[in-house]
Amino acid sequence: MPRKIIIDTDPGQDDAVAILLALASPELDVLGIVAVAGNVPLALTERNARRIVELAGFPEVPVHAGAVRPLVRPPITAEHVHGQTGLDGVDLPEPDVPLHPKPGIDFIVETLLAADSGEVTLCTLGPLTDVALALNRAPEIAPRIREIVMMGGAYFEVGNITPTAEFNVYVDPEAADVVLRSGVPITMLPLDVTHRALATPERLARFRALGNRCGAAVAGMLGFSERFDREKYASPGAPIHDPNVIAWLLAPELYEGRRINVAVECASPLTLGMTVADYWRVTGRPANALFLRGVDDAGFFDLLVERLARLP
Amino acid sequence: MPRKIIIDTDPGQDDAVAILLALASPELDVLGIVAVAGNVPLALTERNARRIVELAGFPEVPVHAGAVRPLVRPPITAEHVHGQTGLDGVDLPEPDVPLHPKPGIDFIVETLLAADSGEVTLCTLGPLTDVALALNRAPEIAPRIREIVMMGGAYFEVGNITPTAEFNVYVDPEAADVVLRSGVPITMLPLDVTHRALATPERLARFRALGNRCGAAVAGMLGFSERFDREKYASPGAPIHDPNVIAWLLAPELYEGRRINVAVECASPLTLGMTVADYWRVTGRPANALFLRGVDDAGFFDLLVERLARLP
Amino acid sequence: MPRKIIIDTDPGQDDAVAILLALASPELDVLGIVAVAGNVPLALTERNARRIVELAGFPEVPVHAGAVRPLVRPPITAEHVHGQTGLDGVDLPEPDVPLHPKPGIDFIVETLLAADSGEVTLCTLGPLTDVALALNRAPEIAPRIREIVMMGGAYFEVGNITPTAEFNVYVDPEAADVVLRSGVPITMLPLDVTHRALATPERLARFRALGNRCGAAVAGMLGFSERFDREKYASPGAPIHDPNVIAWLLAPELYEGRRINVAVECASPLTLGMTVADYWRVTGRPANALFLRGVDDAGFFDLLVERLARLP
Amino acid sequence: MPRKIIIDTDPGQDDAVAILLALASPELDVLGIVAVAGNVPLALTERNARRIVELAGFPEVPVHAGAVRPLVRPPITAEHVHGQTGLDGVDLPEPDVPLHPKPGIDFIVETLLAADSGEVTLCTLGPLTDVALALNRAPEIAPRIREIVMMGGAYFEVGNITPTAEFNVYVDPEAADVVLRSGVPITMLPLDVTHRALATPERLARFRALGNRCGAAVAGMLGFSERFDREKYASPGAPIHDPNVIAWLLAPELYEGRRINVAVECASPLTLGMTVADYWRVTGRPANALFLRGVDDAGFFDLLVERLARLP
Repeated sequence: MPRKIIIDTDPGQDDAVAILLALASPELDVLGIVAVAGNVPLALTERNARRIVELAGFPEVPVHAGAVRPLVRPPITAEHVHGQTGLDGVDLPEPDVPLHPKPGIDFIVETLLAADSGEVTLCTLGPLTDVALALNRAPEIAPRIREIVMMGGAYFEVGNITPTAEFNVYVDPEAADVVLRSGVPITMLPLDVTHRALATPERLARFRALGNRCGAAVAGMLGFSERFDREKYASPGAPIHDPNVIAWLLAPELYEGRRINVAVECASPLTLGMTVADYWRVTGRPANALFLRGVDDAGFFDLLVERLARLP
Repeated sequence: MPRKIIIDTDPGQDDAVAILLALASPELDVLGIVAVAGNVPLALTERNARRIVELAGFPEVPVHAGAVRPLVRPPITAEHVHGQTGLDGVDLPEPDVPLHPKPGIDFIVETLLAADSGEVTLCTLGPLTDVALALNRAPEIAPRIREIVMMGGAYFEVGNITPTAEFNVYVDPEAADVVLRSGVPITMLPLDVTHRALATPERLARFRALGNRCGAAVAGMLGFSERFDREKYASPGAPIHDPNVIAWLLAPELYEGRRINVAVECASPLTLGMTVADYWRVTGRPANALFLRGVDDAGFFDLLVERLARLP
Repeated sequence: MPRKIIIDTDPGQDDAVAILLALASPELDVLGIVAVAGNVPLALTERNARRIVELAGFPEVPVHAGAVRPLVRPPITAEHVHGQTGLDGVDLPEPDVPLHPKPGIDFIVETLLAADSGEVTLCTLGPLTDVALALNRAPEIAPRIREIVMMGGAYFEVGNITPTAEFNVYVDPEAADVVLRSGVPITMLPLDVTHRALATPERLARFRALGNRCGAAVAGMLGFSERFDREKYASPGAPIHDPNVIAWLLAPELYEGRRINVAVECASPLTLGMTVADYWRVTGRPANALFLRGVDDAGFFDLLVERLARLP
Repeated sequence: MPRKIIIDTDPGQDDAVAILLALASPELDVLGIVAVAGNVPLALTERNARRIVELAGFPEVPVHAGAVRPLVRPPITAEHVHGQTGLDGVDLPEPDVPLHPKPGIDFIVETLLAADSGEVTLCTLGPLTDVALALNRAPEIAPRIREIVMMGGAYFEVGNITPTAEFNVYVDPEAADVVLRSGVPITMLPLDVTHRALATPERLARFRALGNRCGAAVAGMLGFSERFDREKYASPGAPIHDPNVIAWLLAPELYEGRRINVAVECASPLTLGMTVADYWRVTGRPANALFLRGVDDAGFFDLLVERLARLP
């Protein structure tokens, strides 16, 4: 039986690829998508999510609107990376499928309460605002969540938006803090993993060579968003972040990491949003997350190509 | 035309008196009451709110359930002050009126969106979680709120739950921070005011002498909750906090204060929840609140007695 | 036998009055004066200290130069209060007595090590930099200090230089933190005391009426420095801060306070330098200071007048 | 003409090797050694420094005692790494050469004031307490220092004593902060470098094979201290930290890095002592240090072996 997941996301090109990977994978049952403010504002992320389910040929997957802003802090966006639409690099039509009227937080809470305990996994590709709000609204969902698999944080790679913070956590550090202290089983895919999964020109060419519209879209989107990082890091390709969340569900053997304590810096402006990973276990703080550090990047791209080939 | 208000509250004995004062006052139209976790857990505060509307003879005023816990931090309660029920000191029957099914945050948001802009005042007697969540959910309500009148904070009186923090702000400092940065007009009734409104035995006797059930209940409730503070402060009576919020709406001439900047300490454990009031205007930070410091306490108690006399 | 004291000071008009009070009092043996950067830079404070010992007719009391800047942070001065010289309001000649060649920190350390344990009291009228540096240099002096009597901090009066910090502590919060954690017996004279000792015109007239040069100088100096505070606080006179340290040694019965824990905020920019006084003993932290809150201000001024009359 | 240096150090086995490397190198003129509390208490580090100059045959190099404790915080030591003596792993006799009577801070200040401006380099192998105290005592030395070359901090390697802090900076973060804000030219050798210079068994064997007493001592000392790190990191050898400071002076071509801004976290307990390196230049903060990241480790060990061979 396929694994039931909810995808919380702020597309964003790499979010889009993650959604495509999930929809293309029969092992996963995407119950719904919740859009959150992040890479671009909510009005764009929810529209982008609807464009992607249509692109993938899954217009029946409902798209809900989550939080329009972080728990406590003013919104921060990243148009310098993702372009003004959040999906620059591909020209997708306006979506026909409407936004689902049920608010995203309600959808998360009700879905978890209606499902069997331990049945539903939350996959987060953006700031953790929606999950924190759902846990705030209905703390009784915490023991019912099978797992939260999140793209976010950094330790040895340290940060991207600031010297010490990864974007998803930096945008809403209090939300990440709530989630990491929630007691829910958590798997983190931090920059430590995603900076090893580089979209080189050769890899982009493989997507384009698929010959389908989804492959072309992925090549176009990742070709756009990688411009920023390739220049910054002087690397042969930009990191591919969010699809690792889905790939981990499909093929955890591609990844390696440690069960450790991860805490979020919420107090100091200098280090705000840092995910302090006790990788060497020197603090005595109890483990609260599986912190992944390594990925078989060739295997990851093979998986991505193989799955995208199944889409229209 | 009476002024429309929503009361957000965590009864608590002094919350109860504030609700009674509002319901007894024809100048005010209580659109609804939202209970929030605070002095005692939400399951008790919403029940207590229903008991109070029944006691006052206003069972038609809807009671909604707000947040069950603070935005970010674990719940903190104050049974050492308020007793196990939150209304210790009076024996009120189980309420007949049910909790309204609409969640409190929805009620706040929908009421503000449905009313004319500038028509509805929010009165907060507990932690600011609900208001912060409503502003997070629907930032477009901010310019529609006439005013937020809040019991909370302290400057010259500094703190009660810690040396530097008043309980309502300490329980959810991030929520108070969100509210104080929201741009909504704010009037604060801090400990600086409420510690000048002492429930002396003579004043309690006046409530009892009213001869009605509400007067007796108020005397009983305040007689209970004051035990803690009278001992701590070695004062002739305990501070009466929350009814000042309603009294300010009814008779602002009883109060004096300054329009100044107030900021909330959210970063340091030592001073967490302090409301840093720029009372001497030394920081250059723009005013965001009317910070009240003085009260004509005799006038306040006269008003309270006069109004409670109108209730059953 | 007179009590042996070292005065660490940043004159400053009220520092000057404190030094005069000490020199005029046979109960005290002023072993030396150490000037520290504070109200004005060190080059001025040490010169001002020498002018004051000459004014008082005690040129034999050595003046040493202490720290030129705070432990960690950049220097902050208060010329807006004290004028460009630090002693504006009186026209004192250039001092003849030279600065003592022994550095102030060395003087403090060596004096304490040479004296009997418990023999020497440190009186601090400015930032605590010198004492912190002495304790850092020679931790073995801590148990030898009879007491540190400091003007600094604030709790119910909260702050003067910022909404939450008193100047002496704000300038070097880490030094104050070191001192308060040192285990040395400490008596604090915070704004809570000094804001009750107001230099009204009547009181200034009493100094002037003494007919001696010191009385005239005190009237002139306090008349200058009070301008700032009288306007700010709209009070009948400005607070007299530093002489309370000496008056406490001479007549502790004029003061009342509590032995409590006092901690210094060193982490948060918003509340930096606050002295968090556990006045209501709610934290469980052990007492480390006698925190004075009240003063018999009439008695204080009587003492001051009586002693200044003994000087030339 | 040899480059004049002062070595400030807390030996510690790797400090000892760094001192030997400096003394063995004719390009350097070691004006003096200042011992500071760090890996072990000052009473041990100053004795160990004297043992090392005798071992090297340079008893004429003066050893001074610096700070006995950090600027603000309580001392922290690392006997779990270095053993009870700080030099466990070798059996060196009690030193004959006495401690120089001039305090270490005085030595630093006076040496800099006596030398030509830009003539003297400070090499720090331990906490930065002494340098911060010297800059506090005599700010006028700052523009006279040629360069501060420090072993300390971490960015991609993040931390050793905590998840986010390297030992030397963690022990006295305020001192490191003072130094990094001083305007003095700074070269940092952080864990990012030193974790690439591993003392493998083969490399230890090369020291032993030198046949002289210094080679044997180095092999013994590094063989001891590496036990801790080899187990922790499961690496083929332990990092060699401090000798990189001297090797950088001798052969900067072995290293690579970037001129960037480095700031020290002093406020938050979670990330205390982190050296936030703006390696990707995303903050706009001006460069204040040359932050080294890479080392030709084979070249480094060749240099070390070649120089140690020159010693007795």
